[in-house]
Amino acid sequence: MTPLRTRLLAEGVGTAALLACVVGSGVMAVVLAQGNDAVALLANAGATAGALYVLIAVLGPVSGAHFNPAVSLVMALRGNLAGRDAIAYVVVQGLGALAGVLLAHAMFDLPPLQPGTRVRTGAAQWLSEGVATFGLLLTILLGARYRAAALPALVAAWIFAAYWFTASTAFANPAVTLARAFTQTFAGIRVDDVAGFVIAQFAAALLAMPVARALAGPEPPPGPSAREA
Amino acid sequence: MTPLRTRLLAEGVGTAALLACVVGSGVMAVVLAQGNDAVALLANAGATAGALYVLIAVLGPVSGAHFNPAVSLVMALRGNLAGRDAIAYVVVQGLGALAGVLLAHAMFDLPPLQPGTRVRTGAAQWLSEGVATFGLLLTILLGARYRAAALPALVAAWIFAAYWFTASTAFANPAVTLARAFTQTFAGIRVDDVAGFVIAQFAAALLAMPVARALAGPEPPPGPSAREA
Amino acid sequence: MTPLRTRLLAEGVGTAALLACVVGSGVMAVVLAQGNDAVALLANAGATAGALYVLIAVLGPVSGAHFNPAVSLVMALRGNLAGRDAIAYVVVQGLGALAGVLLAHAMFDLPPLQPGTRVRTGAAQWLSEGVATFGLLLTILLGARYRAAALPALVAAWIFAAYWFTASTAFANPAVTLARAFTQTFAGIRVDDVAGFVIAQFAAALLAMPVARALAGPEPPPGPSAREA
Amino acid sequence: MTPLRTRLLAEGVGTAALLACVVGSGVMAVVLAQGNDAVALLANAGATAGALYVLIAVLGPVSGAHFNPAVSLVMALRGNLAGRDAIAYVVVQGLGALAGVLLAHAMFDLPPLQPGTRVRTGAAQWLSEGVATFGLLLTILLGARYRAAALPALVAAWIFAAYWFTASTAFANPAVTLARAFTQTFAGIRVDDVAGFVIAQFAAALLAMPVARALAGPEPPPGPSAREA
Repeated sequence: MTPLRTRLLAEGVGTAALLACVVGSGVMAVVLAQGNDAVALLANAGATAGALYVLIAVLGPVSGAHFNPAVSLVMALRGNLAGRDAIAYVVVQGLGALAGVLLAHAMFDLPPLQPGTRVRTGAAQWLSEGVATFGLLLTILLGARYRAAALPALVAAWIFAAYWFTASTAFANPAVTLARAFTQTFAGIRVDDVAGFVIAQFAAALLAMPVARALAGPEPPPGPSAREA
Repeated sequence: MTPLRTRLLAEGVGTAALLACVVGSGVMAVVLAQGNDAVALLANAGATAGALYVLIAVLGPVSGAHFNPAVSLVMALRGNLAGRDAIAYVVVQGLGALAGVLLAHAMFDLPPLQPGTRVRTGAAQWLSEGVATFGLLLTILLGARYRAAALPALVAAWIFAAYWFTASTAFANPAVTLARAFTQTFAGIRVDDVAGFVIAQFAAALLAMPVARALAGPEPPPGPSAREA
Repeated sequence: MTPLRTRLLAEGVGTAALLACVVGSGVMAVVLAQGNDAVALLANAGATAGALYVLIAVLGPVSGAHFNPAVSLVMALRGNLAGRDAIAYVVVQGLGALAGVLLAHAMFDLPPLQPGTRVRTGAAQWLSEGVATFGLLLTILLGARYRAAALPALVAAWIFAAYWFTASTAFANPAVTLARAFTQTFAGIRVDDVAGFVIAQFAAALLAMPVARALAGPEPPPGPSAREA
Repeated sequence: MTPLRTRLLAEGVGTAALLACVVGSGVMAVVLAQGNDAVALLANAGATAGALYVLIAVLGPVSGAHFNPAVSLVMALRGNLAGRDAIAYVVVQGLGALAGVLLAHAMFDLPPLQPGTRVRTGAAQWLSEGVATFGLLLTILLGARYRAAALPALVAAWIFAAYWFTASTAFANPAVTLARAFTQTFAGIRVDDVAGFVIAQFAAALLAMPVARALAGPEPPPGPSAREA
């Protein structure tokens, strides 16, 4: 069993890198895209998928590569992660995500903390976050069961698609959502709108558990599962 | 053998997710692309390929991940799926596809049912659907035989390519075609034009069977095949 | 050993599908891209890579999936393909390529045969074709040796890259070059310019043989090699 | 053990091909993109990722496919590469990179050597190079340990993402940086700015070593590692 300290290092480094990529590639894309937001989102989604693929592949064997409090919650409820460890995971994910936003701002020479102003609220947005997160958890739970070696590519592909087919561009992650409230760039979200997204994300993650069980039958005994993916 | 009820759940969830992606990413792409339809189609095709890759990978082990009446028909004719089960598959695929269109409309706050108005008819369009579906079935039949583990990536890559090299953007699926007659967005099709597409798709699927047999020699005895891919 | 007739069917179907994709996606891309040729080439290159990945994966186990006289020549010189069979391969590749162009024109409702008019000549173009083809053969020869299962993805990735980093957009295939002289669309080439391309392609393919040998050491005894990739 | 001469040939050919792709695809993209630099960078990043994937896959088994003095330095410090061999690697990488720039210029009929003029300097740029190179080394060190077979795809995906999420477009390689000072095209860098980039790259590569150790625990005894990836 990897020591908790090492796993937390992996969660922190991975979540920071993920946010640096989400925010940084959004900045670069908007600077270059001359107002064509579809080209900007293609770049943003492609870069995010690339980073997710790498980070899950190389840090998954260390910590499970959750980078996401909704994933850690589900893993704890399934008995794959001790409750105490899950709390530590979530704290480190939040701090890592914030560090990633700071890093992106530093790389592009922008003010470090910018309270988000981009409005993202309403039932259609919350439904979008629910669909994106529900699908992410199904991807992880079924993928870990049937295609563990492909899990990094599966998560990357799901997020790439969900950037496009949801109205919210698929944050699908409470730590990511919170951290994106500290940037006024392309990837930002208004501070007031964070709570609605986070509630939708956790609710959808919990809903995915019984659906995954219905699809994949009774779980095999708790074990390495996602960690080895 | 997975119970039929579970397999139908997988077909329904998967086909709904596929349609939500096809229609939703089309809406998002057109909103952002400022009239450059090539950028919109790149996003639409990329998102669809990403979703197909994930859905076939995680639901293939449950139901075979057909999501397509033309595929279920061929599997039934080959003896890989009981005739009675095939009928249930097709019904659930149709309902799932329609649910996916409704979900996409809800995520983007659009009217739920919109009779399609985009004209897609004529010999060139039908030929396009035939080529796309013929290639899809060859990909599935030969891929299941020679590269079962890569089948999700193969189908995704074929559909990405066929979005571009056919004049019809490769619906290649009767359930998808029917459901897309209920949207007036980028992915829509005029209600009157559905029949021509569906006939071309089924005809091409049937034509692919002997060609696959000629290429791959006598079939191994009926068995898990596509289901395990 | 697969019968020659079956292998020729695979070479014909595969080369036709490849050309239908190269030409068809070029037509679609130009129609949609509103004059932005970079977006058009992204779509054209992405669609071609997707088709190559699928066609090599599912037809490689049948015929080796050459679809390219320069590849068949090298395989014959290495003793992996009988000389007589190589001649049949090349004839079928040429006919298949032409059929693919006709199919693309039919799908887009264009005149069937259009003598190519796009000028592609001069030392820089020939050097480009040489580099693209040299790299293609190195990819195939070393890939078949070290990464046989990944060969479809490797060839697709090389061609995607070479579409962009060569001045000629990497035809890299004498049958493809000849067939593209029968279209006046995006992918076309002036009839008079075919010979220069073909000479550069064959010369580079032959040059790749000793370089591959220098990099990979003495060959293992002739055997399934590329066929199993 | 592969003879040094053969390994140097692989490093030279691979680094030259990498630079031909980076520079050549930048030229092509700018010519076609009509001033939309986001489309140009998408093409440039996609082509570079494709070439990296192929070159690491087919030359990795020969030389380790470093193509990068920062990687060779780390491999030497870890005991995976003799110090004397590392020096030879670095020299050949530099010469190969320069040859690749010359080749790209020749393919596009441009003056062979053009002292770079594009300004890339300041703390934000150096931080960007540090982040890109640090992540590249973590990808290689952890990827070689946990996912050796996927290393070519991992490196390609990291570089694709880093092109977008860093302000410098992720040179992440001293040989590449030096060679790109000899072009005035899209990929160029002002000669005066090379030193800052190179220092940041080497510093970040060294910093990645203890972090990789903290994440992956004590190293297994020196062995084939990267070479087999």
